[in-house]
Amino acid sequence: MTTTFPELLGAQETTATAGEILGRCRELVRPTLADTVGRLHPWVAEMAAYSFGWCDVGGTPAEGSGGKGVRQALAVLCAEAAGASGEAAVAGAVAVELVHTFSLLHDDIMDGDQTRRTRPTVWKAYGTGPAVLAGDALFALAVEALAGVDGTGAAAAVRRLSAALGDLVRGQADDLLFESRPWTGPEAVGPEEYRTMVEHKTGALLGCAAALGAALAGAPEPTVAALDRAGRHMGVAFQVVDDLLGIWGDPAVTGKPVHRDLRQRKKTFPVLAALSARGPGAPAAERLATLLRDSPDIPDDATTRRAAALIERAGGRSAALEEAERHIATVETCLESLSLAPRASAELRTLLRFLVRRDI
Amino acid sequence: MTTTFPELLGAQETTATAGEILGRCRELVRPTLADTVGRLHPWVAEMAAYSFGWCDVGGTPAEGSGGKGVRQALAVLCAEAAGASGEAAVAGAVAVELVHTFSLLHDDIMDGDQTRRTRPTVWKAYGTGPAVLAGDALFALAVEALAGVDGTGAAAAVRRLSAALGDLVRGQADDLLFESRPWTGPEAVGPEEYRTMVEHKTGALLGCAAALGAALAGAPEPTVAALDRAGRHMGVAFQVVDDLLGIWGDPAVTGKPVHRDLRQRKKTFPVLAALSARGPGAPAAERLATLLRDSPDIPDDATTRRAAALIERAGGRSAALEEAERHIATVETCLESLSLAPRASAELRTLLRFLVRRDI
Repeated sequence: MTTTFPELLGAQETTATAGEILGRCRELVRPTLADTVGRLHPWVAEMAAYSFGWCDVGGTPAEGSGGKGVRQALAVLCAEAAGASGEAAVAGAVAVELVHTFSLLHDDIMDGDQTRRTRPTVWKAYGTGPAVLAGDALFALAVEALAGVDGTGAAAAVRRLSAALGDLVRGQADDLLFESRPWTGPEAVGPEEYRTMVEHKTGALLGCAAALGAALAGAPEPTVAALDRAGRHMGVAFQVVDDLLGIWGDPAVTGKPVHRDLRQRKKTFPVLAALSARGPGAPAAERLATLLRDSPDIPDDATTRRAAALIERAGGRSAALEEAERHIATVETCLESLSLAPRASAELRTLLRFLVRRDI
Repeated sequence: MTTTFPELLGAQETTATAGEILGRCRELVRPTLADTVGRLHPWVAEMAAYSFGWCDVGGTPAEGSGGKGVRQALAVLCAEAAGASGEAAVAGAVAVELVHTFSLLHDDIMDGDQTRRTRPTVWKAYGTGPAVLAGDALFALAVEALAGVDGTGAAAAVRRLSAALGDLVRGQADDLLFESRPWTGPEAVGPEEYRTMVEHKTGALLGCAAALGAALAGAPEPTVAALDRAGRHMGVAFQVVDDLLGIWGDPAVTGKPVHRDLRQRKKTFPVLAALSARGPGAPAAERLATLLRDSPDIPDDATTRRAAALIERAGGRSAALEEAERHIATVETCLESLSLAPRASAELRTLLRFLVRRDI
C-alpha cells in the first residue's frame, strides 16, 4: 500500500465505512491473534479456529463466518485516538477477542444454543466437555497474552481485563437467573436491573477493549477512564438496539425470524419497560402481563404479534429507543470531552453508528 | 496463641504432622479466600462455597468435605522457606486454590463425574450451565486476586499463573484424548506421553503454587525456579502414587473400590509402562494387551484381577514405584540445593511424604 499524499490521508480516511474500518483492524490484529491461538494444544487450537470462522470441523481452512471484530477494532481505534499507532493496542485487541470468543463458547453451552453465525456451535460440533475446555484455554490465553506485554503496564492491563471478566460472569449469572423469574410482582425483573445486567454482560468488555487500547498507547488515566465509559455505553446501546430488532426487526434485514425474542420469551428491555409502565401505558402493560403469563411456552404467531402491539402501546418501544439514544449521547459526551486524534475519533463515531443505527 | 519460649518453636514445630501443617495453612488463608469468594455474584458464590465444602446446596453452612488445601499450603510453606511470613503468600495461595477449584468444577463436567468428596459434583447439584459459569467466575477471580497484589511482582505473578493455566488445559486436553486412543500400536499412549500429561495437568499448578509463594516472599529467581521444579515433581509423584493406589490400593484405606482404575479402563502409568515392556516382561505385556482389547466396557472382577496380575508381571507396578521414587528424589534434590528456613523446609518434606507415602 503506497500513499502519495500522506497529508491527505487523514481527511480521506475519515470517510472509511464501518466495514472498511473493521476490516483494517482485523488485518492488523489477525497475525498476532493467529500466532497466539497457534500456541494452544492442536485440538483446542482447532476448536478456537473454528469459532473464529477460520476453519471447518476437522481443520479444513474456511473463510468468513467469524465475528466482525468490534472489540479488537475498539482497542485499535482507541490507541490511535490517543495518538499512538494501532500496533500499540494489538496485545489488548488479541486479549479482548479471545475473551469474547471464550464467552460465546461458554454462553452457547449455558443457553443451549445450537447454531451461531449459521454454523453449529462449538459444543454442538465438538461436544460439551471439549467446548468447556476450549473456552478455558482461550480465557487462559487472553490473560497470558496481556500479562506478557512489555513495560510496567502489564499488571494494570491484567487488572482491567480481570475486572471485565468478573463483570461478564456477573452479567451472565443475572441473565440466566432472569429466565426463571416472574414477569410481574415483587420478584419481577425491572428495567434498571436489566440495564445493569447488560452493562456487565456486554458493556464491560467493550469498555475494557477501549480502555486497554488507550492504556497500552500510554494515554493518561482520565482519557483511559473516559474511553472505558464510552465503550460501556456503546455496549448497552448496542444491546438495547438488538432488543428492539429482536421484536420489530425486519427478518429480511436481520436474517432472524420475526418476533424472535418474544417467541423465545426473552426478558428484554422493551418488554420490561412496557411491563413497568405507569400512567397512560398501564392498561396495555396489564394486558401484556396477562398475555405473557397465560401464553404457552412456545407462543404462536398471533400471540407474539399481539404481545408486540401491547409492548408498543405500553410505551416499551419508545422507552427502548430513548434508552438507546441516551447511551449514544453519553458516548458522544465522553468522546467530546477528550482531545483525540481526528481520524480515529471520526472512525470511533462511524463504529458507534454501525453498532446502533441498524434498521430498527 | 502465646509462646513462652519462641526459641524452642523451630525445633518443636518441625514435628508437626501433615494434618497440622495443612490445617495451619488453611486457617491462615481462609479469611482472605472467603472474602474473595464473597465478592462473587451471590448465586455463583454459593456454588463456589459448595465446592469448597463450606455449605450445602441452598447455602446452609457445612463443615468439612472440602479439599485438604495442598496447593495453598505449598504456597505458604515456600514463602516461609524463603524467610518471609506465610502472610506474604496469601494472595498466591488464594489464587491457586481458586484455580484448583475451577479446574475440578470443569473437569467433573468433562469427565461426567457425578460425585466428589462423597457429595454430588457442582454440575450434578446445580446443572451444567451454572457449573460452567461458576468455574469461569473462580478463574476470573484467581487472576483478579493475583493482579491486585501490591508492588512490581503482580505482572510476573500473573504470568506464572497463566502459564500454569495453559499447562493445565493442555494436560486436560491430552487426558481427554487419551481415552479414545488404542492400548497398543503406533497410536498408543506411551509412558513418556503420560508423564508429560501429568506434569501439565497436576504438576504445573503445584509448581506454580510453590513458585508464587516464594516469589511473593521476594525470593531470588533461582530459588523460585527450583521450588517451581520441586512442586512440579511433587505433583507427578503424587499422581503416579495415585495410579498405583487406583490398582493396588486397599479399599479400606483409599475409600475407593478395588481395581477402580482398571474397572474404568483408565490409561494410567502402571498400565502404560506394562504395555511398553520389553525383555522378560514382554510376554505378560502381550497377554495384557489382548485382555484389555478383548475385555468388555465394564470388565468383571475376574478380568480386572487378571489385568492387575499381568500388569505386575510385566513390570508395570515396579516401573511406577521407580517413577514415583525418581520424582521424589528430584524434589529432595531441589530442596537440598537451596538454603531454606529449617522449619518450613522440614514441613515441606512432611507434606511431600504425606502426598506420596500413602499405603501402596
